[in-house]
Amino acid sequence: MWFTENYDNKASLGLAVKEKLHEEQSPFQKIAFWETEAFGTLLTLDDLVMCSEKDEFVYHEMIVHMSLCTHPKPERVLVIGGGDGGAIREILKHDSVKEAVLCEIDERVVRLSQQFMPSTASQLTDERVALAFEDGFEFLKKFENHFDVIITDSSDPIGPGVALFQEDYYKLVKGALRSGGIMVSQSESPWFYADIMKNMTGAMCNVFSNVETYIAMIPLYPSGLWTMTMASDTHSLSDFDFDRAEKIASQCKYYNPGIHLGSLELPNFVKDIVKNR
Amino acid sequence: MWFTENYDNKASLGLAVKEKLHEEQSPFQKIAFWETEAFGTLLTLDDLVMCSEKDEFVYHEMIVHMSLCTHPKPERVLVIGGGDGGAIREILKHDSVKEAVLCEIDERVVRLSQQFMPSTASQLTDERVALAFEDGFEFLKKFENHFDVIITDSSDPIGPGVALFQEDYYKLVKGALRSGGIMVSQSESPWFYADIMKNMTGAMCNVFSNVETYIAMIPLYPSGLWTMTMASDTHSLSDFDFDRAEKIASQCKYYNPGIHLGSLELPNFVKDIVKNR
Repeated sequence: MWFTENYDNKASLGLAVKEKLHEEQSPFQKIAFWETEAFGTLLTLDDLVMCSEKDEFVYHEMIVHMSLCTHPKPERVLVIGGGDGGAIREILKHDSVKEAVLCEIDERVVRLSQQFMPSTASQLTDERVALAFEDGFEFLKKFENHFDVIITDSSDPIGPGVALFQEDYYKLVKGALRSGGIMVSQSESPWFYADIMKNMTGAMCNVFSNVETYIAMIPLYPSGLWTMTMASDTHSLSDFDFDRAEKIASQCKYYNPGIHLGSLELPNFVKDIVKNR
Repeated sequence: MWFTENYDNKASLGLAVKEKLHEEQSPFQKIAFWETEAFGTLLTLDDLVMCSEKDEFVYHEMIVHMSLCTHPKPERVLVIGGGDGGAIREILKHDSVKEAVLCEIDERVVRLSQQFMPSTASQLTDERVALAFEDGFEFLKKFENHFDVIITDSSDPIGPGVALFQEDYYKLVKGALRSGGIMVSQSESPWFYADIMKNMTGAMCNVFSNVETYIAMIPLYPSGLWTMTMASDTHSLSDFDFDRAEKIASQCKYYNPGIHLGSLELPNFVKDIVKNR
């Protein structure tokens, strides 16, 4: 048996599957868990790969540690989306963090991840963690000058995730950040979704004075070459806390201080996409 | 219609195809060219993706420029394999090169690439280029103290490529290099072929005093995260000619001086594979 994700009818990824562990239709999307041959348990939403047990460390380490090791003292961190809990697990590796909030629109993603992907979701019961099951856009309106880092760990800009790729959203994020705050968002593949990259980094530039795109190599995402983008009025990812990064790296499988700097170096064709926004 | 490559029955890549342009059985392998929806013309050998018109720049720029921008004056460069001609095209961007030799066991790969992938193969008629259609292992025995850089642009270590991943081969390469020479080889994916990586870098370490693995992100190869490995008794890739790299980068879509340094930064799990060889 195979799970297959189709990329716009141009390419596809197949994963050999031992068993479909669970499938249900939530109010928001079809949630499924699969036992794969090569990548452990796989979570899909509406038949799109979100993450697997074996490869999720790449995405979660890279969406968290780049900005948290750049912020001088991240105390309050918000994740929008990220119902699998992987980003929260990485955030809690930072001693300075007092409050890690997960705002996920679909409670079923969280509950099922706790059941089927415990190594990813287990830290969601930590006392520093608060869970909010609501729309990220609406949730942000409640906060002013509150968070140090806000991470958008969203699915693609279709379905429930669509509002999280637009300028109005980035304005809300900015309002919810404390002075010196940083936002970061996954920003798709330059091979398959260059237009989305252009539009979202362009929208971020309208709201923040410094916008930086970096790279993570995620084997189960289209092309394997994935981008994430940071925006801040104060910080630049190249000016990070090396010692803190080294300490965090000792608990990581992907992230380290060299990767921190290396992932900021973009291939020419990716620079062109971001430059031409 | 789809072309599908299966990775050890664990995962697969599918590419939507408009048309199969050509297929033939050479004395060595099944050679096919396909017109794909997303990646232009695709070359496969024994149903494994070699390269496509749209993505081949990544592989070819990265297997050539890292070592050629590190060698102080590369004049004689040999490519073993690489029948599509992409590596030769990149080598000829270096003004110092006087002699670029392609040793490809299967002449049909070269002739068909000239016909079906002219943007990749067209430089094979340059006057600095010599073509040899023979076994790379045997070809190397004819040379002593001759080449500045030797590039192994091989298919996987099955079929005709198998000898090119072993210590005896690296010894021959070393004998054919001039003093101060550099060899480089594609070295597979850490996600799917960690054992091959371990074995080949271990074998290289038995022959050369300095062995360095670096990364290129190739969308049509398993996991997208690909490694290449350099070996030399004299040089380190981190000590390269920045100005030359910048000049070359102006003719590239992937390579630039930042990528040169960034690609040397390995994720922790890749470091572990190479360290534990």
